[in-house]
Amino acid sequence: MVVWEIVALACGALSIAVAGYLYKWVLSQPNEGEAMVEYSKEVQEGAAAYLKRLFEALGALAVVIAIVILVTLGWKTALAYLIGSFSSAAAGYAGMYVATRANARVAWAARSGLKKAFPVGFYAGGVMGLSVVGFALLGMTIIYMIFHDPNIVLGFSFGASSLALLAKAGGGIYTKTADIGADLVGKVEFDLAEDDPRNPAVVADNVGDNVGDVAGMGADIFDSYVASVVAVMILGAALHSENEAYVIFPLLLSAAGILASLLGMLFVRVGETNDPGRALNTGTVATTIIFGLLTLGVVLVLDLPMGVFWATIAGLLAGIVIGFTSDYYTDIDQSSVQNTAKSAETGPAIVILEGFSYGLLSIVPSIIGIVVAMIAAWFLAKQFNVEGTYGVSVAAVGMLAITGMIVSSDAYGPIVDNAKGCAEYAHESEDVIRVCDRLDAAGNTAKAITKGFAIGAAALTVLALFAAYAETVQIDTLDLREPGTVAGLFLGAMMPPLFSALTILSVGRNAFLMVEEIRRQFREIPGLLEGKVRPDSKSCVDIAARGALKELILPAVLSFLVPVAVGLLLGKHALGGFLAGSIVTGIIFALFMANAGGLWDNAKKFIEDGALGGKGSEAHKAAVVGDTVGDPFKDTAGPSLNTLITVMSLSATVFGPLIAKFALFGL
Amino acid sequence: MVVWEIVALACGALSIAVAGYLYKWVLSQPNEGEAMVEYSKEVQEGAAAYLKRLFEALGALAVVIAIVILVTLGWKTALAYLIGSFSSAAAGYAGMYVATRANARVAWAARSGLKKAFPVGFYAGGVMGLSVVGFALLGMTIIYMIFHDPNIVLGFSFGASSLALLAKAGGGIYTKTADIGADLVGKVEFDLAEDDPRNPAVVADNVGDNVGDVAGMGADIFDSYVASVVAVMILGAALHSENEAYVIFPLLLSAAGILASLLGMLFVRVGETNDPGRALNTGTVATTIIFGLLTLGVVLVLDLPMGVFWATIAGLLAGIVIGFTSDYYTDIDQSSVQNTAKSAETGPAIVILEGFSYGLLSIVPSIIGIVVAMIAAWFLAKQFNVEGTYGVSVAAVGMLAITGMIVSSDAYGPIVDNAKGCAEYAHESEDVIRVCDRLDAAGNTAKAITKGFAIGAAALTVLALFAAYAETVQIDTLDLREPGTVAGLFLGAMMPPLFSALTILSVGRNAFLMVEEIRRQFREIPGLLEGKVRPDSKSCVDIAARGALKELILPAVLSFLVPVAVGLLLGKHALGGFLAGSIVTGIIFALFMANAGGLWDNAKKFIEDGALGGKGSEAHKAAVVGDTVGDPFKDTAGPSLNTLITVMSLSATVFGPLIAKFALFGL
Repeated sequence: MVVWEIVALACGALSIAVAGYLYKWVLSQPNEGEAMVEYSKEVQEGAAAYLKRLFEALGALAVVIAIVILVTLGWKTALAYLIGSFSSAAAGYAGMYVATRANARVAWAARSGLKKAFPVGFYAGGVMGLSVVGFALLGMTIIYMIFHDPNIVLGFSFGASSLALLAKAGGGIYTKTADIGADLVGKVEFDLAEDDPRNPAVVADNVGDNVGDVAGMGADIFDSYVASVVAVMILGAALHSENEAYVIFPLLLSAAGILASLLGMLFVRVGETNDPGRALNTGTVATTIIFGLLTLGVVLVLDLPMGVFWATIAGLLAGIVIGFTSDYYTDIDQSSVQNTAKSAETGPAIVILEGFSYGLLSIVPSIIGIVVAMIAAWFLAKQFNVEGTYGVSVAAVGMLAITGMIVSSDAYGPIVDNAKGCAEYAHESEDVIRVCDRLDAAGNTAKAITKGFAIGAAALTVLALFAAYAETVQIDTLDLREPGTVAGLFLGAMMPPLFSALTILSVGRNAFLMVEEIRRQFREIPGLLEGKVRPDSKSCVDIAARGALKELILPAVLSFLVPVAVGLLLGKHALGGFLAGSIVTGIIFALFMANAGGLWDNAKKFIEDGALGGKGSEAHKAAVVGDTVGDPFKDTAGPSLNTLITVMSLSATVFGPLIAKFALFGL
Repeated sequence: MVVWEIVALACGALSIAVAGYLYKWVLSQPNEGEAMVEYSKEVQEGAAAYLKRLFEALGALAVVIAIVILVTLGWKTALAYLIGSFSSAAAGYAGMYVATRANARVAWAARSGLKKAFPVGFYAGGVMGLSVVGFALLGMTIIYMIFHDPNIVLGFSFGASSLALLAKAGGGIYTKTADIGADLVGKVEFDLAEDDPRNPAVVADNVGDNVGDVAGMGADIFDSYVASVVAVMILGAALHSENEAYVIFPLLLSAAGILASLLGMLFVRVGETNDPGRALNTGTVATTIIFGLLTLGVVLVLDLPMGVFWATIAGLLAGIVIGFTSDYYTDIDQSSVQNTAKSAETGPAIVILEGFSYGLLSIVPSIIGIVVAMIAAWFLAKQFNVEGTYGVSVAAVGMLAITGMIVSSDAYGPIVDNAKGCAEYAHESEDVIRVCDRLDAAGNTAKAITKGFAIGAAALTVLALFAAYAETVQIDTLDLREPGTVAGLFLGAMMPPLFSALTILSVGRNAFLMVEEIRRQFREIPGLLEGKVRPDSKSCVDIAARGALKELILPAVLSFLVPVAVGLLLGKHALGGFLAGSIVTGIIFALFMANAGGLWDNAKKFIEDGALGGKGSEAHKAAVVGDTVGDPFKDTAGPSLNTLITVMSLSATVFGPLIAKFALFGL
């Protein structure tokens, strides 16, 4: 099997090498606008300052957790944990680093037209996408090659996840603090445009896009990607101990996904059609097809039953379907968005009620998709004498294997969005702004698809982790007729709403401080409103960063301690029920929040495009309220929930054997 | 055992007799204000017209379902089903009938002061409270005496529940259609006061309070009350078949609850303190203590183990605790309401985000309360060799046994609220309005407590039904490691959000029609705004009623068909998982919506009481948006969810044996 481990290693290394090459290429692009460079520098400094603080805090936390692991589970898991944290941080940092340097270059290239600008944005996104899968596969393969024990690789995954949760939630609080603050004072009180350089919070807002949407999202997908592979490795070792190929299989699937993504990226070209959205979609479709073919090859060379092939394909297809249908509810051309926009004519309350309801409705197709994928993967596996649970886990890997391509298109979004901000900041011509707008619109669709995709994948991943937990603590049945399981189910189901509430309240508190600071600057800095002097952007960046880290403490502590407490108090069955409950409401709230937020955003855009009186009308004001409510839904609370349920599942699995031993009541 | 059955029968009959006596007393109170009588007549006619339509539609539906039951399960269950539907309708109708006649009498009595007016309102509420428990106990006991089979009594419960779901959801859509319509046009566009007689939707709004809060709520609690008793009867017969006392026990608990409520009502007096809130609380406390003592007596005379006594007490105490803590988050003196009010200064978006978050936080104490009650009841039962599941079910009955008193205080709320509307309509003096206001404030607290109480009780009841389902279809373990159970869990968890979304969208659509009609009347009826002519209230009543019935169809069909479809397609384990999933999200969404709605309502009132600029300030406008969003949360979607999960559990249990036989895949 060593030869296949080396193949996986090589693919991981290749991915990082290509990322490095793209990084050099992006930085070699011309960047000659003076104001653009200045803007870009401010964003770079702000983002680097925040990430430095974040990683210092998380570094300290990681050391503490590593010591706990060292004492309870030994040095191997502790080491893997640290490497996992570091790799996840590195992938996020690399993505953020190139993104904050690419923005001005995309904006500069936009002066020469769409065809010049698009590849700069997309390849900068590619650095992120390929770093994520490269670091992940490399880390997992090396650890497995050294220890040959999936439980040690689990430590790597736990490290990646804990970092991701904090990076994602912290980034989410940061970005919305800045965004809401900038909008409430700048747009509403002083009637400034988006990205007006006089607004002191504009830089913080753009830093937020990078630390939230790029670095945070990178860490998040890194986390699901690793967790899905590790779950399959553990289940392979537990359920098919007769054949190591079951353990290696997910590593090779990831390797196949990397190759497919690299080849698929060649198809991403804005040709004669001049349509960047189409270019991205072509890339995704090409990657999917290539990955399907490579998977067949992997199954054949490892001599595994065809059941694992079909389970992988079931997951892959389900991912695509969930991605595209979840786009439906947030699509600006569909009735849900347009009805919500129309309701804006009766004021903000009805906008909120409509968006809330459509957001809830939007969970239905995704839930059905997840259920169908799960049952199909189970049956397809069973048909070929593969354990059903293994089949479900493999489906999760199938969904996530093309992450390289998906994350590349996704990271492209905030980069071109920032490029637009940069162009506006530099007072570029209407033409340049229009090019940036078209790049941006394609990014929004890619983002919507990725979001559904990420949640679907997270659902199957945590189901796989749930099975891995049960195997690790040796639960044969997890009976809903027992009071412990039901108690756990209720308590677990409570966690995602609780976490959402805490992070949204954080944004509210933090945004309040930001609003005060912006008002203070306009009041106390003479000539600011006239554009004669520059605002003190640093102090806004500072407020967002300090607040985000402070506000992280409570939700972070709860998400690490509550599962352990439930396990120690009520036993391993209750903890199993707890995980099940958290998965169910975690998925539902994540889908609801992501889609409701996207829908309000687009309802506002629909009006801004000229419908119902357009910008400045009463309907527009009502729609802005909806958008502001949706912001922390879709960018703070919603996206953190994936990671929350993964972290809780992983921490239960890592500490499961200990918990089972020391539980107070064995319910 | 027959003697005890006769005791139960006698207590049920006594309850109805006292209700009849109170009814006569209320109607004998003076009612001499001409404008008041006129107002009251309009509300009576509107309410009767809506209920007539509703019951005609539901009657037809009940006959259809009864025929299905007749063909599949036999005439006994079908008959019990019809009697259950009829009893539930009768209890709701009786409550509504007296409530719409009491309003003017309370308003008239308010001219002679608080001491005169309070008993009129409270005893009118008592008619409702005592009718609910009387009809319920009488119906169950008679059916059990005839057939001696808890499964036939299950049919009675299913009938009551299906009617309750539609009455509650329909009433909720009706009341919020009218309320939002009246507010949006009347208050916002024409600057009219609440209950201004020139507003064409005012009568519909007040009719809505009666059909939603009185008739709908009565049917709802009727449903939980019966379901909890039936679940214990089924579990008693299945788990302790050696002793019929286990089956009869819940009937006698209910009888004890009726006696306790009757005695407790004697303590409800506005003495020298002149504090109606305190009077209601004294009544609840007295009822609780008397019920505890009577329960001990029942356990001793039936010679049951003390475990059932302690389990009952655990439920009773948990109910009280959940009721009072759920009041905390909506209390106008607490930080959650005041923070939300303060955030109104930054506009409506932050008000929504704060209320949303506090609403989510509010589920935490209740969920912990439910879990503790469940585990405590289980262990207390086990200590005395009683089956744990039986203990949990008995706790649900313990919570609900004092329903007579709880519903009386609760129904008092909308009655005195309506009395206030009546006094305003009749242009009574400030003094009279102030008396009505004080009566109303006490009603709001009682309502908040009842809401938490009802949801806690529903949670334990459905857990009991869940166990009854498992016994009926003979599931030994319901394993969360099987794909069918997990698939069911996801699908079931999807139902409460789906149902909420559909009912809220219904309100939005219907309110839109109402707004158009109100605007039309102000435009086309000359002299209406000047108060020279009367508005066409009937057409508004008609829009609300027609819309409510039409909009009911889809959610009703889904809630009956989806569980049956899941069972027939995926088998009895999947259906078990489905019920568990629906219970978890049902409880979470019910708590969240009830509390968020109450919180926004009180944040608005906090500002109206003079804080943050008071009425008319920007903060007030923002808080009004919050209140409007909260209205369908707390009065339409939220309260229907209890009933939704009960109906689904009952329909699964009733059709369970058939489903198990014909399932396509036995997952």
